[in-house]
Amino acid sequence: MTFSATVFIGTSLDGYIARPDNDIDWLTSRGEKAGDLGFFEFLNSVDAVVMGRNTYNQALGFGEENWPYGTRHVGVLSTTLPANADPRITVYRDIDTLITDLETRGTEHLYPDGGRLIQSLLRAGRIDRFIISVAPVLIGTGFPLFGDLPEDISLHLDSATALSGGFAQLHYTVQK
Amino acid sequence: MTFSATVFIGTSLDGYIARPDNDIDWLTSRGEKAGDLGFFEFLNSVDAVVMGRNTYNQALGFGEENWPYGTRHVGVLSTTLPANADPRITVYRDIDTLITDLETRGTEHLYPDGGRLIQSLLRAGRIDRFIISVAPVLIGTGFPLFGDLPEDISLHLDSATALSGGFAQLHYTVQK
Repeated sequence: MTFSATVFIGTSLDGYIARPDNDIDWLTSRGEKAGDLGFFEFLNSVDAVVMGRNTYNQALGFGEENWPYGTRHVGVLSTTLPANADPRITVYRDIDTLITDLETRGTEHLYPDGGRLIQSLLRAGRIDRFIISVAPVLIGTGFPLFGDLPEDISLHLDSATALSGGFAQLHYTVQK
Repeated sequence: MTFSATVFIGTSLDGYIARPDNDIDWLTSRGEKAGDLGFFEFLNSVDAVVMGRNTYNQALGFGEENWPYGTRHVGVLSTTLPANADPRITVYRDIDTLITDLETRGTEHLYPDGGRLIQSLLRAGRIDRFIISVAPVLIGTGFPLFGDLPEDISLHLDSATALSGGFAQLHYTVQK
């Protein structure tokens, strides 16, 4: 059983997902004006979420009552987080274990979050679609959404839309 | 007399304008399928073009009969190019001299090209609009369109459009 994976993420126009200190106020302050940009409709379509340690820490920062993932399977990739750190999550030590366990569980539609995890899955050929909401701001430095690649990756543009709050939303399918 | 400046440029989805060896085949091969993406209509609206040395070398590589700038004023920013290298161009040694001369000439609408020159003009507050044609490909490394900034720059999204060839074209006005 294999799964498809869709990245749903916000970036600055210069391609960053967070400042060097992990701050995303430049994104969320604009996102509040924009509504949810389709996030909850997207979230309803996925049955598992995986993220890196930084992204997990951000989700914790929202507060327990704001855990957005409901009862979905949530995986966190981390070499240091204790395995029993949080009953809502499964801790994975490496990306191969993560992929194998998701397949064993019969995951159908995966939502991977966080820059390094997205880059690892992309290089492993396990990302199928991108929904990128581009905030109308240049922040100059930070954690980029994309990273080095062994070779070019071609995509198919499914749509380009101007949303409220000045966001441009780009939908892509990865060509395999 | 001051001028307004519009950047018209193609990038990969990961924000590069050229590979490390200056190759842009990943862009032009897709651009050929897409038509001119509005470039010649845009070019008709400008009365001066400025570029860095790398971009000038690329323009030379297209061949003399393919010089796209007609009789427009063309400036090249370079510390090493001889002043009389090419009768079609004016060589500028620094960005302040470039800006002052364009203003003295009564330039109304400037087309700045090339990553470093665009970044310098942006940091100097002299870029007014961006028209970015995003090619549907990730190339992993190269020369980025955007660079470090002393502070955030907010933009207004004027439009987001899916064009032929899988290009997404984003039109922004810089907020000042």
